[in-house]
Amino acid sequence: MSDTATLTRKADFPGLLTPDGAPWHYLDTAATAQKPQAVIDAMSRAMGRDYATVHRGVYSRSAMMTQGYEAARRRVADFTGAQSENEIVFVRGATEAINLVAASWGMTRLTEGDRIVLSTLEHHSNIVPWQMVAERTGAQIDVCPLTENGCIDLGALEAMIGPRTKLVALAHVSNVLGSVLDARKAADLAHSVGAKILLDGCQAAPRMTLDMKALDCDFYAFSGHKLYGPTGIGVLWAREDILDSMPPWQGGGAMIDKVSFEGTTYAPPPQRFEAGTPMITEAIALHAAIDYVAAQDPDKLYEHENGLARKLREELRRTNAVTLFGPEESAGIVSFALEGVHPHDLGTILDEENVAIRAGHHCAQPLMEHLGVPATARASFGLYSDENDIAALMRGIERTRRIFG
Amino acid sequence: MSDTATLTRKADFPGLLTPDGAPWHYLDTAATAQKPQAVIDAMSRAMGRDYATVHRGVYSRSAMMTQGYEAARRRVADFTGAQSENEIVFVRGATEAINLVAASWGMTRLTEGDRIVLSTLEHHSNIVPWQMVAERTGAQIDVCPLTENGCIDLGALEAMIGPRTKLVALAHVSNVLGSVLDARKAADLAHSVGAKILLDGCQAAPRMTLDMKALDCDFYAFSGHKLYGPTGIGVLWAREDILDSMPPWQGGGAMIDKVSFEGTTYAPPPQRFEAGTPMITEAIALHAAIDYVAAQDPDKLYEHENGLARKLREELRRTNAVTLFGPEESAGIVSFALEGVHPHDLGTILDEENVAIRAGHHCAQPLMEHLGVPATARASFGLYSDENDIAALMRGIERTRRIFG
Repeated sequence: MSDTATLTRKADFPGLLTPDGAPWHYLDTAATAQKPQAVIDAMSRAMGRDYATVHRGVYSRSAMMTQGYEAARRRVADFTGAQSENEIVFVRGATEAINLVAASWGMTRLTEGDRIVLSTLEHHSNIVPWQMVAERTGAQIDVCPLTENGCIDLGALEAMIGPRTKLVALAHVSNVLGSVLDARKAADLAHSVGAKILLDGCQAAPRMTLDMKALDCDFYAFSGHKLYGPTGIGVLWAREDILDSMPPWQGGGAMIDKVSFEGTTYAPPPQRFEAGTPMITEAIALHAAIDYVAAQDPDKLYEHENGLARKLREELRRTNAVTLFGPEESAGIVSFALEGVHPHDLGTILDEENVAIRAGHHCAQPLMEHLGVPATARASFGLYSDENDIAALMRGIERTRRIFG
Repeated sequence: MSDTATLTRKADFPGLLTPDGAPWHYLDTAATAQKPQAVIDAMSRAMGRDYATVHRGVYSRSAMMTQGYEAARRRVADFTGAQSENEIVFVRGATEAINLVAASWGMTRLTEGDRIVLSTLEHHSNIVPWQMVAERTGAQIDVCPLTENGCIDLGALEAMIGPRTKLVALAHVSNVLGSVLDARKAADLAHSVGAKILLDGCQAAPRMTLDMKALDCDFYAFSGHKLYGPTGIGVLWAREDILDSMPPWQGGGAMIDKVSFEGTTYAPPPQRFEAGTPMITEAIALHAAIDYVAAQDPDKLYEHENGLARKLREELRRTNAVTLFGPEESAGIVSFALEGVHPHDLGTILDEENVAIRAGHHCAQPLMEHLGVPATARASFGLYSDENDIAALMRGIERTRRIFG
């Protein structure tokens, strides 16, 4: 990927400039991605001259908006390699997607003594919903450990699963370490004991080609805002037969077949899980975001961000003052500690240099405990990142060392 | 309210033009409101040059976005007459607000034999969540009938509530008939037997001054998109002591205090109920929408839309071919049937005249059954509506009568 291509791409993102028009070295894409102008424009049009509700209007603009909303669903289906758009449920975000599976599938399928397997590196959104379900159903949570270099240990997974394992729920890519799961192997292991597998795809969806068939998983969740799309929308992909078998979670308009006080019947999926007026303009803008990402070639995106992560690790190592967390092969996410400097202080000084990193527990406190630190500094790349961003970060780190030296 | 003021206002809404720049007579504001340019611009800025995540970034733009997000919460608190911004939970929409109360408060407070009172005119979003809770807890639903003219019958409510009544959940304004509840009287009745009251404020919030203290209710729900704001966001207002006592519903990032596999503790409200990355840009745009609405004087809005509804009812009556549903005093929403013409056919013909009405059950099937019709035609007004819209509708109705005559 040439520098020219990256630079052109930077120009597509109004968020990558400071208020006075200087380059902003945004290295927090794992938290949320900046939006290309095409996505912002799609949102403006949808909120303006195209605006109407969906599914229920008899006038033509509402029919067109409904087409746009359902075209977004088909676009997501295509992007994920789904068999059908009926496998795509629009949700508020990945967190809601996982809560939906926990509340609808988990609460009706899990009973006392069943086992749910998570891993040490999971984001809170893939821990807390399962703790809530476990508390209510009597199911137990098993925690799959990590390998020395911070990957989910599939050998350990194989050893710990058994006939009582009903669900394996894992991050496809760690939001802290960038470690990539061998998702197909994890799915095969889960299925070998009759368990279902859920993948938290928040960090994978913006960086890798998704192919639900090849992954052979059962549930897949990701957010729109990490995929260069808007906030307020995310996607739950699930196998159609599993969705079919799941009871509704939230009740309201649009998810029903017939309502009466004597008894209510429900629509088939995905509508069954989309109660109320949906995130109409967000779906339209997500469509534009996926078009943008797909035009960049997802395979190359991984290569690009993995390359930047490798380069950054090298540079950080060269300082002899940095502890690196996680594997060498990372999906564009690098967590580290600078000797003698709290990550928050580093973040604050970098901010003065127009460099934005994340400092904190990254919603992964169990992983912090495992790493033996309260927080890490994290630099994460996006499709607009380039070596200038790394250079700015390294200059900021040098300055921080001088200040703290 | 002068015509000039209304016409000026129309120019603020890019959605009120057809693709070829002609006026679009949008009479479906009860389904969703068009957005003023100020709201669209706020969304664009938030997605562009201001974009960052909230609550967790150490860099200044994230701190500014957090301020913007929390300023939106304070704006909503002010708009609703809340005592504190801690009473404001941002949700996906009113449907989710009611589901949140049902799942968190309802599931932990209701037991077998408890009574939930709804009314015949409720929207499905204020029926189905309670049916789900009733099914799981053994609580029973009582249905408060309507008066002859389509208002919730508070005399009947008084007669039907008792010590087993734990919740009264009613629409503040009917989305089909425009009937306005005497909300304070309903709250007093509910409280007289120790029950809580929830108001579905979707249609009231865009048309009336909200004052939680004067209403003395316990829960109040409304959507952003009906309040001239974006899709994907809504508000649950609840008394702080009640929110405090409620367990979390969805688990994930941002709603926790501390996560470990040994046990997780939760943040205080409202964060406890906002799992995951919130609807950041939607909150910013909702703030702009409330600023816009507040600048119009909410008391005058009711007067304006109530006046248009009265005018429309007169004109419809004059045709001698229309059945009118609901009370004379309506919050800008008029449901009717045109003799010998199915509402869908009327809607389709009106569409050719650039007039948009809703035809259907309006997510209120029990009310349709009560009215003895499968569907109604509904014209609903917004702050941008004027007599030209009524004239266009009446011309379209005349044309429809000629076609069907």
